[in-house]
Amino acid sequence: MLPEVKKNTLRRLATIRGHLDAVARMVDEEQYCIDILHQIRAIEASLENTKQVMVEGHLKTCFTHALAEGEGEKAITELMKVLKSNR
Amino acid sequence: MLPEVKKNTLRRLATIRGHLDAVARMVDEEQYCIDILHQIRAIEASLENTKQVMVEGHLKTCFTHALAEGEGEKAITELMKVLKSNR
Amino acid sequence: MLPEVKKNTLRRLATIRGHLDAVARMVDEEQYCIDILHQIRAIEASLENTKQVMVEGHLKTCFTHALAEGEGEKAITELMKVLKSNR
Amino acid sequence: MLPEVKKNTLRRLATIRGHLDAVARMVDEEQYCIDILHQIRAIEASLENTKQVMVEGHLKTCFTHALAEGEGEKAITELMKVLKSNR
Repeated sequence: MLPEVKKNTLRRLATIRGHLDAVARMVDEEQYCIDILHQIRAIEASLENTKQVMVEGHLKTCFTHALAEGEGEKAITELMKVLKSNR
Repeated sequence: MLPEVKKNTLRRLATIRGHLDAVARMVDEEQYCIDILHQIRAIEASLENTKQVMVEGHLKTCFTHALAEGEGEKAITELMKVLKSNR
Repeated sequence: MLPEVKKNTLRRLATIRGHLDAVARMVDEEQYCIDILHQIRAIEASLENTKQVMVEGHLKTCFTHALAEGEGEKAITELMKVLKSNR
Repeated sequence: MLPEVKKNTLRRLATIRGHLDAVARMVDEEQYCIDILHQIRAIEASLENTKQVMVEGHLKTCFTHALAEGEGEKAITELMKVLKSNR
């Protein structure tokens, strides 16, 4: 894992954790559902961005190496499973 | 907020928090990106389910009251903003 | 179905159809995958917007009537199935 | 573009077109919004699958060539833009 990807990802996860705690407090205080829902959407977006950072890091390292070593087929299958939208 | 929605949501948020900490540990230990990505996808799915629980609670309470009091237009506009996929 | 929702939706679907035909031509001419993928993303966004128009129309009509007639529980369950992200 | 990806994609796009026409008919006949919404969701899923087929084809061909020719950086940036969820 690239050092900057590791650092960037850990920083993002820490932020998401703080955001998640804030949402739990909002629920505990029974704030307005719509406001809480907007915060959950924001967390989803942050999580999606974190995933993108990690996918990009993967493409630059493990994936590139796999292709160079003729392991492309396996690496692509593996990657496609992760890329498939959660849907 | 319905008591069961509050309880259910807080329980789900606590689980997601634990899951998020586990992912941060995986990143810290530099585990395989693809494995980490699968875990992030799982968290996204849990978050989406949590959102559904809260939307359903909202429809059953605040939204229903708003319609009954002739505040439908405003309630619908507000709800649509939250429902718009993050995309 | 509200007349303006019907008209708006049919217009959007016709546009999406034209866009889809354009993408098929791009594939047939073997244009660059990345360019084709951007067009498919644009169609997904148009489809999502069409869905929003229809959900909003549903909330304003059938859903509001169902709540007024004490059929809220059923209407909410039905709506939640459609709202669940495809994920 | 790999011949099987081209064929597969064109076949999928033709199916989606037929599905889209069926939805337009449902709207024109003012069928129940919820039923129409379920069909739109199904089209979204088909479109997403079509995108996956094309991304996989891209990874196996253009993307692999780009990496082999030292054009990885550019190819990754380009791919990431397409992968970013529409959200």
